[in-house]
Amino acid sequence: MTVKKDYVRPLDVKNGRIDMNHGAGGRASMQLIEEVFARAFDNDFLRQGNDGATLPVPAELLEGGRLVMSCDGHIVSPLFFPGGDIGCLAVHGTVNDVAMMGARPLYLSASFILEEGFPLADLKRVVESMAAAAREAGVPVVTGDTKVVEQGKGDGCFIATTGVGVVPRGVAVGGANAKAGDVLIVSGTIGEHGVAVLSQRESLEFETAIVSDTAALHTLVAAMLRVAPPGAVHMLRDPTRGGLGTTLNEIARQSNVGMLIDEATIPMRPQVEAACELLGLDPLYIANEGKLVAAVAPEAADVVLAAMRAHPLGANAARIGSVVADEHRFVQMQTRFGGRRIVDWLSGEPLPRIC
Amino acid sequence: MTVKKDYVRPLDVKNGRIDMNHGAGGRASMQLIEEVFARAFDNDFLRQGNDGATLPVPAELLEGGRLVMSCDGHIVSPLFFPGGDIGCLAVHGTVNDVAMMGARPLYLSASFILEEGFPLADLKRVVESMAAAAREAGVPVVTGDTKVVEQGKGDGCFIATTGVGVVPRGVAVGGANAKAGDVLIVSGTIGEHGVAVLSQRESLEFETAIVSDTAALHTLVAAMLRVAPPGAVHMLRDPTRGGLGTTLNEIARQSNVGMLIDEATIPMRPQVEAACELLGLDPLYIANEGKLVAAVAPEAADVVLAAMRAHPLGANAARIGSVVADEHRFVQMQTRFGGRRIVDWLSGEPLPRIC
Repeated sequence: MTVKKDYVRPLDVKNGRIDMNHGAGGRASMQLIEEVFARAFDNDFLRQGNDGATLPVPAELLEGGRLVMSCDGHIVSPLFFPGGDIGCLAVHGTVNDVAMMGARPLYLSASFILEEGFPLADLKRVVESMAAAAREAGVPVVTGDTKVVEQGKGDGCFIATTGVGVVPRGVAVGGANAKAGDVLIVSGTIGEHGVAVLSQRESLEFETAIVSDTAALHTLVAAMLRVAPPGAVHMLRDPTRGGLGTTLNEIARQSNVGMLIDEATIPMRPQVEAACELLGLDPLYIANEGKLVAAVAPEAADVVLAAMRAHPLGANAARIGSVVADEHRFVQMQTRFGGRRIVDWLSGEPLPRIC
Repeated sequence: MTVKKDYVRPLDVKNGRIDMNHGAGGRASMQLIEEVFARAFDNDFLRQGNDGATLPVPAELLEGGRLVMSCDGHIVSPLFFPGGDIGCLAVHGTVNDVAMMGARPLYLSASFILEEGFPLADLKRVVESMAAAAREAGVPVVTGDTKVVEQGKGDGCFIATTGVGVVPRGVAVGGANAKAGDVLIVSGTIGEHGVAVLSQRESLEFETAIVSDTAALHTLVAAMLRVAPPGAVHMLRDPTRGGLGTTLNEIARQSNVGMLIDEATIPMRPQVEAACELLGLDPLYIANEGKLVAAVAPEAADVVLAAMRAHPLGANAARIGSVVADEHRFVQMQTRFGGRRIVDWLSGEPLPRIC
């Protein structure tokens, strides 16, 4: 049997650009999907070739587990930054949101909104980074969609991802579950993602050795849940947009508690501290993409912390304070100089387009 | 207990506009989510308030069913058109992609990419339309995300939706399953969505009574599967971007078959025919958002067609031809004038930003 070639010639991935035809749903769309997306993401689910994927059901679901679903849009600017790009970020961000529910991430969907004129070489680089991140995480992109908007109506490439996962029976992790007395643990140094992205902004460009911490945290979460007594990990969240300061306020509000953290214990690289000083930014509000904060029952804190430190993504994990009873739901911080200050919500927008 | 107000004043939904703060993940983001999104989509899953939703598992999954996942990005321009808007379209598009797998749609995620300066009144209108469509379809939006890009880097509002559903045990519908001899059925008149959107384009604006056919087709699919002998519905697909002509070519390619359709039997409103003539467009390539095409085993065609016609969304359903053996995978059409022509893939882009 000879296979007929459906396209006259392959895409010019080196010099070509996205044009409106690539979003029209016809032959050009199909060629883009086959030569860029399907080739990179290659898996049995995508190979079904339908407008959706039919997926096997994991054993945990049949044993009393629940489904988890989470989504995230990615608009980071620039698309490529030290330590990562929008492609791997889109995988990590959604894998992490699913993992923060105490779930095992299973499948991803990816929706691309491309701007006319976007270089195919950049698209290929983004898609391959995304595919590598998905493979490394063990969470395949099983279905996708591509749309194209006219030049000036987009910004190169936006990616919206949705993740589906399964929470095993008995796991109950959530933003409303932090309790007074819980120990707050952060999984590592804060502020790297935001600083790495900022360092590439046209208006700012500065020299830094800082690279984004973007990473998939689901195996770290699994390691924590494995050692903790059932129900002892109350809350997990990744402090992305808005940083640790905003995340702690979100949790305080949701769980109706206060927090008291100790500035001196918050892990931070000296270069991040220096960059924040230079730019007049508070590292508490800088985005992270490979860190989590946990509220753990005090009797389980040591064993959970030890498990985190034994994991490559938790080597610098540290206790940073505790959850306290507080009807005002204030997040307070003991400063390095011995004072105490309120860590308020982020209200302004110091860092647009960070993820 | 008195509830403390967290915001100084409510959003000015009448005159306000999206600004970069609404995408920063801080207090302004939370206010937007609570006063616009959560209020409209209101359901128990969103009320969990986490970065994802924990969801119950449907009985069909436990009884040997499989999961289905599908996603779609929506960039339609203009955002509001006769018969619908980007909000309801985003629900219908993804519900339909899930339904075309023979699945019962369960849950939706929604990721919004908003442009700085987008009127809050327009956002509210879009979100309320989306919420109404989700309620009507019985498929809740369980999790979401909002990002904001600078003015000139987006186009008002893009929405990416992902749907999760369940295929009951024994159902095997797919684009690769059309078989020579199958009867091709279309569920109603074609071309309305594309013509309705085009009629609103600044450059074209013309008077038409045509409104978009945007609709959720999952109950129509359920009605078809209910009456058909097991396994008799081989293929279902909604001919959206690229229209019926492109969809039939996709299926021919995927199933490795040919198609022979009869022009005179394809249902079409006279106004759509007139508009297409006026604009020099072929209705076979015009997008639909509330129609499906099915390949059904010949012995089941009558009963399936009858069930479709008994459903409000299938009243104009018609046989339009059949699947034939053809190693070239051509889609051919018997014209009204007695000739035969090849219905080729859409290759150019007559209609950008249609969904």
